Amino acid sequence: MIDLNEMGIKARSVMRFVAQAPIERRNAVLCDLADRLIRSTEQILAANELDRTTGKAAGLAEHLLDRLLINRSRLEGIAADLRNVASLPDPLGERFDEKTLSNGLHVYKMRVPIGVLGVIYESRPNVTVDISALAIKTGNVALLRGGSEAIHSNLALVEVIRQALADHDLPPDVIQFIDDPDRGLVAQFLKMHDYVDLIIPRGGSSLHAYCRENSSIPVITGGIGICHLYVDRSADLEGAIQVIRNAKIQRPSVCNALDTVLLHKGIAARILPLLVDVLTKDGVTLHLHDSAYSLLDRKGESAVVLATPGDFDVEWLSLNLGVKVVAGIDEAIEHIHRHSTGHSDGILTGDEENARKFIYEVDSAATYVNASTRFTDGGQLGLGSEVAISTQRLHARGPMGLRELTTYKWVIQGDYHIRQ
Amino acid sequence: MIDLNEMGIKARSVMRFVAQAPIERRNAVLCDLADRLIRSTEQILAANELDRTTGKAAGLAEHLLDRLLINRSRLEGIAADLRNVASLPDPLGERFDEKTLSNGLHVYKMRVPIGVLGVIYESRPNVTVDISALAIKTGNVALLRGGSEAIHSNLALVEVIRQALADHDLPPDVIQFIDDPDRGLVAQFLKMHDYVDLIIPRGGSSLHAYCRENSSIPVITGGIGICHLYVDRSADLEGAIQVIRNAKIQRPSVCNALDTVLLHKGIAARILPLLVDVLTKDGVTLHLHDSAYSLLDRKGESAVVLATPGDFDVEWLSLNLGVKVVAGIDEAIEHIHRHSTGHSDGILTGDEENARKFIYEVDSAATYVNASTRFTDGGQLGLGSEVAISTQRLHARGPMGLRELTTYKWVIQGDYHIRQ
Repeated sequence: MIDLNEMGIKARSVMRFVAQAPIERRNAVLCDLADRLIRSTEQILAANELDRTTGKAAGLAEHLLDRLLINRSRLEGIAADLRNVASLPDPLGERFDEKTLSNGLHVYKMRVPIGVLGVIYESRPNVTVDISALAIKTGNVALLRGGSEAIHSNLALVEVIRQALADHDLPPDVIQFIDDPDRGLVAQFLKMHDYVDLIIPRGGSSLHAYCRENSSIPVITGGIGICHLYVDRSADLEGAIQVIRNAKIQRPSVCNALDTVLLHKGIAARILPLLVDVLTKDGVTLHLHDSAYSLLDRKGESAVVLATPGDFDVEWLSLNLGVKVVAGIDEAIEHIHRHSTGHSDGILTGDEENARKFIYEVDSAATYVNASTRFTDGGQLGLGSEVAISTQRLHARGPMGLRELTTYKWVIQGDYHIRQ
Repeated sequence: MIDLNEMGIKARSVMRFVAQAPIERRNAVLCDLADRLIRSTEQILAANELDRTTGKAAGLAEHLLDRLLINRSRLEGIAADLRNVASLPDPLGERFDEKTLSNGLHVYKMRVPIGVLGVIYESRPNVTVDISALAIKTGNVALLRGGSEAIHSNLALVEVIRQALADHDLPPDVIQFIDDPDRGLVAQFLKMHDYVDLIIPRGGSSLHAYCRENSSIPVITGGIGICHLYVDRSADLEGAIQVIRNAKIQRPSVCNALDTVLLHKGIAARILPLLVDVLTKDGVTLHLHDSAYSLLDRKGESAVVLATPGDFDVEWLSLNLGVKVVAGIDEAIEHIHRHSTGHSDGILTGDEENARKFIYEVDSAATYVNASTRFTDGGQLGLGSEVAISTQRLHARGPMGLRELTTYKWVIQGDYHIRQ
């Protein structure tokens, strides 16, 4: 039986060793880990094969077996990601908000690790390496809880990670894995606020909701995006169609893919037939609100259906798209306030005043003007690496990179200053 | 019966009105509220008198009755604080991390309100005005849960606040008060993660612990400071004594007051008698660890006692002080890691190398070099106002000002950009 509290105590006790390790040492662990993973290919593939055999016997669906898979090329990808994280700038130690007060006290904030991260994830074993690398790079400790179907793969990977830490005089307990399939442990894990500073769920929306509802530790929730694009009267229609197409079809299964298009009534009759032409060629089914349906002649087509009210509160994650005509920007913003999950929403417009209005009045983690919602991604926005996309409001919103795994302390330096 | 969910829905529905109100309007509400409070003095004092009469009849202790008290001069103080908050710069709308990516996308973060704050506090009714002002200034909505002993005062104050909002075309529901003494409501309040973004407890450590353990919403915990000063061998002894005296006696009942002094063995025999002389004159009882006790001749004095081991894990909040002799900076840091609550800890030294080492290795919300721990305070550190002192690690650490009641959104502007 796993003793979670004991793991928590160990985690706290090794925090400062990794927090104080110089960046050269943290990076060396990551590069060394990349080499070690390649050298351990046979053991890792064998462990993964065991998981997949067990999964097949248990009737795991094909797409889940694929998520579970580690092969030579995926392992090389994991190693390349490690070297990329090693190449990123050190987020620790940065000074900011520096000032000298009128009494002469010198004050600044210094960036430091958050502390202990609790990560709960599902079948992809690459998350084990990915999150361990981000934790080590940012001086954090991690307690990992992976899916039971990947248990052998995860244990094989964690062993290599812990060896790499030990080789560089860092405590292996910087990365600990909860090796027990008991689901009750997750509930207990989520209450370990004395030992864990932040819970990061990596998985579907039900995992996020479960963590949020049952955790006494702050949780980075995210992963649900009901995303909108509003086409303003002044938009460039050809540009708008290309952006909508990209946002919908470039990767329909992810959270930043487009779910609903709102069309200004002044251009709806012109753009709608073009949109239907382009999107149906790509296999998209359009769910038209009454306001749009009535504008279209082609009601017999199977790819154009009358929307049900619920269609505007669904994250499609597939080649479906809601379309509604609105009287103008105010109605568009009102619709977004009512139906958006605050992930990624945008306006397509040629009018600067409306762009400004949209930016001020729409409060989504990523608020767009004239761009595809698919850019809500740490890599695309220049963070170098992505921990999660947060749709909660505290600490970090939107794509989280290395810096979002840090916090700060105040440093206050005086000359034997006393408070009057 | 109060319907908390209904209050939550109302709170969410008015969020954007206060978030989008221009700073002139938010400040006007605060200034107007200051005037209105003064004009409503008679009603407020009458309501407060009712609370105090009830409290007296219920046998409330004198210091609690004092906390409850609103008189003319305290009301004037509250009004002056409102005008001060109105005079501070607007934290909203600030752009940061602005950049243009190689593909031409223009990206920045914009500071926006957190959303809905849940504030739980005890007997001081001034918190009702204080936190409402901070919420309005920062564009947030607040749900307030004050102590039952101050209920009439709180309701009188909230009425004035809501009138001031209405006068400036803002929804009164920006500030809502939970008017029901049922303690079970607090447990329910702490689970309202669909409606509340952040819980701020204002009160003693048991309130903080209760919120932390029972909340599914992030909680700003704080309020417990076991604070240390380490006197290095190279410290200026006269300066060190003055800083220790200030940190201990300037206001012993608060969280940033000093609890433990660690003395380098090389100067312990010299500084200890001086420290005893100075501090006992001020009424301080010194709890000496063996290592210090053995250095002192004056063992009969009642103000100098042999420490028990538990004395180094207590927040004194009174004129008591633990003293221990250490071999050097490493033992001092080790002691702090073991016993500090991560609030405020410092080194007194003339050695730059040791100052640097202390800053890097001690990770307290406020880490000091050559200054009194009493500076851990929003007002002292130039924040203009203080929401709380956080000893949790996420979002904000140490003194929290207006900016710490905000978050950000990403704004991404392109020219019909699509993701490749």
